[in-house]
Amino acid sequence: MAALVVGGGLVGPVISLFLAELGQPVEIYERRADPRGMPSAGGRSINITLCTRGFHALDRLGLGDELRQLAIPARGRVMHLANGDTEVQPYGSHGEAIHSIARRDIHEVVLQRATSHPLITARFEHQALSIDLENTAARFLNRRTGLEHDVSGRCLLACDGVHSRVREQLLRRGRFNFSQRYVSQGYKELRLPPAPGGCHRLEPNAIHIWPRERHMLIGFANRDGSFTLALHLPFEGQTSFQSIHDGPTVEALFERDFPDVLHQMPHLAEDFLSNPVTPMVTVRCAPWSVDDKVLLLGDACHAIVPSYGQGANCSFENCAVLSDLLEAHGQDWGTAFKRFEEQQRPEADTIADLALEHFEELQSLVADPAFLLRKQVERRIEARYPGLFAPLYSMISFTSMPYTEARRRAREQRSLVDELLANEEILTLLLSDGLDRLIDERFAANNSVSATP
Amino acid sequence: MAALVVGGGLVGPVISLFLAELGQPVEIYERRADPRGMPSAGGRSINITLCTRGFHALDRLGLGDELRQLAIPARGRVMHLANGDTEVQPYGSHGEAIHSIARRDIHEVVLQRATSHPLITARFEHQALSIDLENTAARFLNRRTGLEHDVSGRCLLACDGVHSRVREQLLRRGRFNFSQRYVSQGYKELRLPPAPGGCHRLEPNAIHIWPRERHMLIGFANRDGSFTLALHLPFEGQTSFQSIHDGPTVEALFERDFPDVLHQMPHLAEDFLSNPVTPMVTVRCAPWSVDDKVLLLGDACHAIVPSYGQGANCSFENCAVLSDLLEAHGQDWGTAFKRFEEQQRPEADTIADLALEHFEELQSLVADPAFLLRKQVERRIEARYPGLFAPLYSMISFTSMPYTEARRRAREQRSLVDELLANEEILTLLLSDGLDRLIDERFAANNSVSATP
Repeated sequence: MAALVVGGGLVGPVISLFLAELGQPVEIYERRADPRGMPSAGGRSINITLCTRGFHALDRLGLGDELRQLAIPARGRVMHLANGDTEVQPYGSHGEAIHSIARRDIHEVVLQRATSHPLITARFEHQALSIDLENTAARFLNRRTGLEHDVSGRCLLACDGVHSRVREQLLRRGRFNFSQRYVSQGYKELRLPPAPGGCHRLEPNAIHIWPRERHMLIGFANRDGSFTLALHLPFEGQTSFQSIHDGPTVEALFERDFPDVLHQMPHLAEDFLSNPVTPMVTVRCAPWSVDDKVLLLGDACHAIVPSYGQGANCSFENCAVLSDLLEAHGQDWGTAFKRFEEQQRPEADTIADLALEHFEELQSLVADPAFLLRKQVERRIEARYPGLFAPLYSMISFTSMPYTEARRRAREQRSLVDELLANEEILTLLLSDGLDRLIDERFAANNSVSATP
Repeated sequence: MAALVVGGGLVGPVISLFLAELGQPVEIYERRADPRGMPSAGGRSINITLCTRGFHALDRLGLGDELRQLAIPARGRVMHLANGDTEVQPYGSHGEAIHSIARRDIHEVVLQRATSHPLITARFEHQALSIDLENTAARFLNRRTGLEHDVSGRCLLACDGVHSRVREQLLRRGRFNFSQRYVSQGYKELRLPPAPGGCHRLEPNAIHIWPRERHMLIGFANRDGSFTLALHLPFEGQTSFQSIHDGPTVEALFERDFPDVLHQMPHLAEDFLSNPVTPMVTVRCAPWSVDDKVLLLGDACHAIVPSYGQGANCSFENCAVLSDLLEAHGQDWGTAFKRFEEQQRPEADTIADLALEHFEELQSLVADPAFLLRKQVERRIEARYPGLFAPLYSMISFTSMPYTEARRRAREQRSLVDELLANEEILTLLLSDGLDRLIDERFAANNSVSATP
C-alpha cells in the first residue's frame, strides 16, 4: 500500500524520494497547483540557505550538485554599521560557505525529481479535509472538480507546513501537546535591483546585515544580479510596522538607517506597499506520531524562526534520519516513528531555541563592543586550536553534529572564554602575541573541550 | 445587534446573563442538545466546587442561593493515609466551606435562567462551522435539519470550551500564540454507592483524598448519598492506566491502596470498564480577542487542571469583570476586551501554574512529614495573626483577591516560614508555647507581610 504524503512543498517530495528509494510507493497530495513553469507569487522571493546538514540529505538523493549550481555561496556576513562602516565576518575559518538559493528553485528541483520517480505520484490542487486514523485514510477535496474522495494508505506523512491541517486534527484528540509562539517582529521583502549591466550592487558572496538594535535589514544575493532585502521590524512600537506604513515613512526610515541602499531602490515605496509582512513563529508539539499511522514532518511539527537559516536544513536532515530508521526497523514503522521522535525532537527543540537567541544576536549584539571583543577572542582561539574550538555558527552550519551536541560544546567554550575575558590582562594581551601563550596555557590545563567528532 | 455566544455550557449562559443585564440582546448557539430533563451522560458526573469568587459572580445574577441549595458544603479534606490513619485538614480557620455541586445542576440552573430572560435566545444542536471576522458572523450547521446558515452579530463570544472551534480558526490566522499541555495523569470516575438507608458512607462535608505519591483517589459527596470517586493514575508506568486495565487489576489496586472503600463498591470493575479516562490539560493563548469582533472566554482561552477546583470559579469571575469593563467603556467593546485581557490573562496564567503545583502537593506532599510540619507552623502563625497570615488555599478559595496577589503573599509567607523552619530551636518550640513568642517577635520585626485587603 502506498504511503500518503500530505503536502508537496519542500519536505513532501524529499521524504517521498527517500521512501521510494526504500521501494515504498508514495502518493503526494498538495493543496496548491503545480508550481512548475508558473509565474512567481508576488511579494515573496524567500531565500533559503542550504548548508552541510541539508546537503548531506540532498546528496544522498543525488540532488546536491544541481542545487549547488542554482545557489550563490555566501562565505560570511557583511555588517553595515550605523556609522557607515562595514565589517566582514567570515562564517568559517577555511572559506566555508552557506548556499543561498530561492525557495522556488529548490521546490522545482525536488518536485521534478519526485514526480519522475516511478514509485511516486503527485496530485495537485488536492486539499486534505479530514483524516481517519482508524483506517489510515484521508478525505481530499479536488479543488478543480469540487469532488471529495477518500484515500487510504499504509500511513500518512503530514508535510503540510507550519499551519498543518493534519496537526489540527491531532490537536482535537486528547493528549497532544502543542505550542505556537510568534516573535514580536515580522519582515517584509524588498528588492534591490541589479546595477546597470546586470551586476550585483553589493558583494554577492555574503549575507548583508544592517543591524539597528530593535530592527534590521538582511540582504541575500539572487542569481539575476538583484538582492532580496528582508526588512525586519517589530509589529508595534516606535520604529515598527505600525509607524512605518507608507511610502514617505519607509523612505524616511531608509534615509535615517539604511542610506547606502536607499538611492539604489527606486521601487522601495511601491514594494513596501504591495508586499505582505511575514510573521515568524516557533512551533513545538508532541507526540509527532500516532502509532504507525500518522507522522508529522518538517514545519508541521518543528517550525523555527529563520535567523539561523536552519528550517529546511533541519527538515531535510530529518528525512534522511527517518529513512535510516525505517530501513533499520524493517516493516515496523510504528517503532521507527517513535525512535525518530525520541532522537530528533530534542534536536528540533534545541535549534528552535538557538534560532531565537541568534535572532537577538544578529540585530543587537553584532554592534556591541563586548560582543565583538568576545568574537575576536574566539577567533584567536579557533585559529590556534581549529580542531578543539569551533564557533557555534560553524558547528551548526558546517558540520552534521547533533544540535544538542553543538549547544553543549558552545556552552563549554563560552565559559572558557568568560574566564579569559574576566581577566583585565586579557584586554592587554589581546593586542599582543601574549594572548596565544595564554590560550596555550588554558588549553593545556583544560581538557573539558572535546575533540572534533 | 445581538451578541453571538458560541457555546451553551456553563460560561455561555453566565456571560449572556451579564450582557442581558446591560441591555444587550444575546443569541446562544450550542452544538449539543438541550440537556434539561435529559438523562445524564454515562460515566461522568463531574463535581465542581464553587467558592467565594464563583459565588461573587453568581450572586450578582441572583443565582447564588439556588446553587448553594443544590451543593454540599465541604469544610476540609479528610486524608486517608496509606497506613489506614485519617487526618482531617480544615480548609479555613473559621469553618469556611467550598461547595461541591454536580456540573449538571449548575448547567441546568444557568441555562434555565438564561433562556427565561427576554433578551436571550438559545439555539441547541447548532454547530459552529466557521467564523467570518470581516463581518462578525459565523456559519452554523443545524444538526437536526442538516441546513447551514450564516448569522451576524455585534460580536462573537467564544465560550466553546477547551477544544474551542472558534479558537481553532484564530490559530490559522497569523500571530496567535497558543499552547495546550497535558499532564501525564488522567482520571476515571467511579461510584461509591450510599449505605443501606441512603446515608453517605463517608463524612459528606469534606473532600476525601487517598494520596499515594504518584496516584490518588479523590471523593466528592453527592446529594443522593453516593460519592463520586475520581481515580487519578499516570497514563503510563508501573501503576498506571496501562497496567490497571480490567476488573482484576483495578480490584487488586484497591485491595492494596484503597482497601477501606473496596468492599463498599460492588460495581467497581464494571464502572472501571465502562467509564472513560479523562485527560487534564492547561490551555494558554494570546490574544484573547480580535478588535471588538471576537472574544474567547472560559476554558476556550484558559483551561486549567482541576486540582484547585478553580476552573469554573475563575471563568465566572471573569464574566463579572468583563461585564464591569463593558459598562465602564460604554459602547467601546474593543477597548473593554483589551483591558479585560490585560487584567485577567496574568490571573489566568497564575491560577494555571498554582493548579499544576497543587496537583503535585495533593498526591505526594500531603503525606510528607516536612510538608506536614510546615503546615503545622503555618496554622500556628495564622491562628495568632489571622488578618496578616493566610494559607494560599484560603486566599484562593475564600477571598476574591487577585490570584497574582495571593501568589505574591504566599511567597512572602513561605520565605518567612522557611526562616522559622531553618532553625533547630523551632522544632523544639513547636511543641511548646514558646513558638507563639517567637512568631510574635518575627511579626513585630517583619512588616513585609501586608494587611488583609
